[in-house]
Formats: sequence, structure tokens, C-alpha cells
Amino acid sequence: MKIVVDMMGADQGVLPIIEGVSQALGTKTFEAIMVGDAQKAKAFISKDLAPKVEIIDCPDYIRMEEHATDALKRKESSIFVGMDILKNGADALVSAGHSGATMGLATLKIGRIKGVSRPALCTLMPSIKNRASLCLDVGANTDCRPEYLLDFAIMGYQYAKSVLGYENPTIGLLSNGEEDSKGNLITKEAFKLISEYPLFANHATTPIFKGNVEGNDIFDNTVDVIVCDGFVGNVVLKTIEGTASAIGSIFKNEIRHSFGAKLGALLLKGAFGTLRQKTDYAEYGGAPLLGVSKAVIISHGKSNARAIECAIYQAIKAKEGGMCEKMMQAFEHKDTQPS
Amino acid sequence: MKIVVDMMGADQGVLPIIEGVSQALGTKTFEAIMVGDAQKAKAFISKDLAPKVEIIDCPDYIRMEEHATDALKRKESSIFVGMDILKNGADALVSAGHSGATMGLATLKIGRIKGVSRPALCTLMPSIKNRASLCLDVGANTDCRPEYLLDFAIMGYQYAKSVLGYENPTIGLLSNGEEDSKGNLITKEAFKLISEYPLFANHATTPIFKGNVEGNDIFDNTVDVIVCDGFVGNVVLKTIEGTASAIGSIFKNEIRHSFGAKLGALLLKGAFGTLRQKTDYAEYGGAPLLGVSKAVIISHGKSNARAIECAIYQAIKAKEGGMCEKMMQAFEHKDTQPS
Repeated sequence: MKIVVDMMGADQGVLPIIEGVSQALGTKTFEAIMVGDAQKAKAFISKDLAPKVEIIDCPDYIRMEEHATDALKRKESSIFVGMDILKNGADALVSAGHSGATMGLATLKIGRIKGVSRPALCTLMPSIKNRASLCLDVGANTDCRPEYLLDFAIMGYQYAKSVLGYENPTIGLLSNGEEDSKGNLITKEAFKLISEYPLFANHATTPIFKGNVEGNDIFDNTVDVIVCDGFVGNVVLKTIEGTASAIGSIFKNEIRHSFGAKLGALLLKGAFGTLRQKTDYAEYGGAPLLGVSKAVIISHGKSNARAIECAIYQAIKAKEGGMCEKMMQAFEHKDTQPS
Repeated sequence: MKIVVDMMGADQGVLPIIEGVSQALGTKTFEAIMVGDAQKAKAFISKDLAPKVEIIDCPDYIRMEEHATDALKRKESSIFVGMDILKNGADALVSAGHSGATMGLATLKIGRIKGVSRPALCTLMPSIKNRASLCLDVGANTDCRPEYLLDFAIMGYQYAKSVLGYENPTIGLLSNGEEDSKGNLITKEAFKLISEYPLFANHATTPIFKGNVEGNDIFDNTVDVIVCDGFVGNVVLKTIEGTASAIGSIFKNEIRHSFGAKLGALLLKGAFGTLRQKTDYAEYGGAPLLGVSKAVIISHGKSNARAIECAIYQAIKAKEGGMCEKMMQAFEHKDTQPS
């Protein structure tokens, strides 16, 4: 299995990317094709690692402050070169660089699966249950038509089933209330489309589509797949980050000011550990871009080595689980809609 | 000052409402006109309280599962009667009942301030700083035009200034990234309207409008007023609730299973207390419905006595701060837009 890894554009530079690849190679067998600044990479690639990876030198990359559309013209950039390698035979790509650039190039070069109106970014949410919910779209499409949300539901369902191995995954539509009547114009229309879609509607005894869900259902795994537009999904993701970090700040502040609290924190180490583990994005890897013809995993810009390692495992799982093939089959049976 | 208090429709029945009024009467002087089931109320009204409150018997009320539009025809319901009393001379109204019913009746009977396209529900967000941000709309308008968001910015700014007493309040637009280019079609257009609005644009040295903000800016008081549509605002509010409650569950679970953790929790009591205080909706009272001609405070259905007490203080502050008059002045200078 050939996996292209973009070394460029991450907040912490090339080091965590190289370490992540190295760690993944310690447990799994795959060919790592690393695109980016070979000079910078050299300093961090050990003698042991060197023979196991292929480095393609392309030092240019899309900066966070640049527009995603710039990427389409930057033929020497790491993500442009990497996407070409993916197109010409590699199996998956992982990037922690400019996410808009990666999404744009993936759609342009790898192409949408037939019938998919828009690819969507899909992420696993933290959970207090054994099974975590996944949420899509969390940033690929800021303005959505109801048909897009139906496609997100189909893609999320397939991903939960074929890659995560969830038995009987369920779907919910993120809304401003759980009653069927709640929603904005787009979600109300999407509600109809999803509930009438044959694959979901034909299971009357144990319905796949559970209707509207709310923000407080995310952690409870009320449903396995949470569908929303990319604007709302992105706002929700950052709200969760903000809430968890604010609660962390409150604790840190108290602990700093009292010896008793310091001791208390020590005794509660287990709880803090569980909390960190449950909310640590690194363990969840990256977010697959569902709906394109090959596995593309978009990692957080602030990814550490562990996050890159997990993203590579995700790529391997997606390939081994036949994610794209199953996605194609799912959309073969869907009447294509004009987009 | 006359404050109408709706006793009906709250999750815990009439008791916390009556207790809240009683507590508020202990510290502030006002006339409480309580609408609802007099029979039910009797059991909880002490001899001391009885002479201080006026009870208007109207046992019918709008159930949570009923449609907001039903309220417009239910002339005997507590909120219908209460809104009439507000219209005919009272100064403010507090209700923890069906929020859609209250909003609908307020708009119909009390009416919009001239120039306001849509009233908006405004709530204080939890904060780790001394000053909390307020967010609007959190549920009154699920589908918004860009002009509505401009009006929300104007109303939030006025509320922060005249009721909360914030010096130099700042405004941010909730979006999927902080760069000016981020947003969906509605927020991008609203971005232009808000940044060009004379009141906000004429302060070039210390700009009032800080541009786009993200979900993780909510707790940091990056800006004082966070503007969004009611669908997004509502989802965000419930996501925060869900995140805080999930983190609480993780701790509770750990504490239950270990003696050391129990002791740790005891030592961290202060931290937990601060956390509870910072995230306790009760301390924030209710959400004012901004943009109608009189003070209407919408409380959480699960309000306890303290939440009702705080909502009454909010109503008093709104009246004393001349909230509606200042809101009217703010919109006098605004070219009215077709809505």
C-alpha cells in the first residue's frame, strides 16, 4: 500500500510528520511517499528510517493565509505534487497543511465519486460512550443545498459501516430542537429527503434515520452519524474545543492557587487522563474527505506525531475497508441529482 | 415597577417560579403580577408573600409539544393574559414557559421597535474572563437575511452598553474561521453591512466590529457581542451544555470508582464550585428578547428559583437602564430596510 504524506504546512513544521510516519511504520507495513522540503526533512530522518521512505523534494507549499484557489496553480507545491502521485497510483494521502488547498486539489485531480454532489469533511467526535459519533460536513461546504445533506448522510453511513465497522449505524440531522418540525429551511427540506431515501426508509422496525438531534447529543452517541452543513459543523467543532479548553483553564487556575487543589488534581489524575484521552484530537487521527475517489485524510494543522500516526492508520483502514468502492456502490443506486 | 411573571409551563411547575419571585422581593422593590393557575399557586404562597403579589387566575398554558402559533389563539392561556397586562401598562414580563409562544405573542402584542427587522433572543455566555460575552440570536430566527444580523449587532451593542454597562463594547460575527474571507453567503454579506454601518465604522482607531470570531472565542471574551443566526446560536448553546455535561460525567464516573478520586474531588471542591458558577445558567438569569418595545425575559424551562430571581433582576435592570428607549434611539438613526 502506497501512502503519500505531505510534510509541509503544519504548525510545528516537518518534525511531527516524520515522527508520525516513523511510528506508523513500526506497527504497519506500507510504502511512505513523503512530499516536501527534502533539505529540511533530512535533519530528522534517522538512518533506520531513510531506507523505508521515499522523499520527493518539493519545498513550496500553500501557507495558511493563502487562498485555497492559489493551490490550483502552484504546480511545484507539495500538495499539488502529492495529489498527482495519489492520482497516478498511490492509495491514500495524508496532509496537515492548508485544508482548503487539499480539498480543492482532491476534488479537481482525484475527482468526485459519481452521484456525490459535494465531498464532505468527516470527523469523529469525542464521546462518553464506547462508540463515538461522526459528524459531517465540518468544513468543506459552507453553503449547502438540502441534496448535499442527503449525500452526507449516505456517505457518513457508509463510512461508519465499512471503515469504522459499526453495526447498524444510525443517522441524525443536527438542528435547533429534536422535534420533527424544528430546523431552518435547508434542514427541513433535508429532513424530508433523508427520511424518504429508500435505504434509510426501508427499515421501519429499527429506523436508521432518527430525525433531528441537538448539540448536546454529540457526546452521548444518540446517533452514529450527525449530518450538518460545513459552516455549522465547523462552528460546533470549535465550540467544543473552546468549551473543553475553558474548563481546563478554570481548573488550572484553581490548582495553581492552592496546595490542597494540587493534591486533589494528583488524586484525580485518572479522571484528567480519561478526559484528555476522550477529547484528544490526536487519538482520532484526521478527518477523511468523503466523496472523492481515493482516500484523502486531512489532519489538524497542530497535529503531533501521534495524530499523524493515527491519520495513517485511518488511511490504511479506509483502503483495506474498501471505503471508496463501497461509497461508489452506495451512489450507483442513487438517482443522480443536478448539482 | 410592575413585572408580570408567568407561573406556567416550566419543567418543575409553579414552585420554583413562586420561590424566585419571593427571593427577588426580598432584595428589590417591585410589583409582581403572577399569571397562571391560582389553585396550584395557593399551596406554595406563604402568608408573608400573599399580600405582596397579585395573582391572576388563568390555568391554561401552552405545552412544550404544542406549536408556537397555537398561542396566538389561546386567549385564556397564562402567556396570552400576561402579555395583555404587559401591553396595558406593566413594565416587563418573565416567562419560563413555551419560548416560541412568548416570542410570538411579544412580537404580535407588544410589537417590534421601529426599524428592527426581527427581534432576537440574546443570552450571556459563560466566560473565563471577568466580562462575559453575549450572543444573539440564540433561537428566535432560524433563517436570517444579512440585514437581520446587522440589527442583531446593533441591538447586542446597545444591550451591552445600556443594560450590562460595558464600556466600549466590541462585536464579532460567528463564522467558520477568523479571516475576513471566511463565512457562508449570509454571514459574508452581513460582514459587509456591519463593517460599513456608520456607528461601528466611525471608530477607526478602536474598531467596535472586530470581524469574524470562532466557537472557541466564546469563553475568552474576545468580543462582547457575538452575532449569529438563531439556528447556529441555538446549536452552539446546546453544544456548550453538552460538552460541559459530558466532562462532568467523565469526572463523576471516575470519582465513583476510586476512593483517592473521591478525596481528590473534595480537595478540588473550589475548582468544581467555580466551574459550576461559571457555567450555571441560573446565575445568568434568562434571555431578553431584544427588539420588542418592552422588556421580555425568556427563562430556561428548567429554571430553578435562583434563575427566576435573576431573570427578575434582569427585567428590573432592563427597565431602569432604559433598554427599550435606547434601542429605539439606536434604530431611529438607522435607515429602515424592507423586511
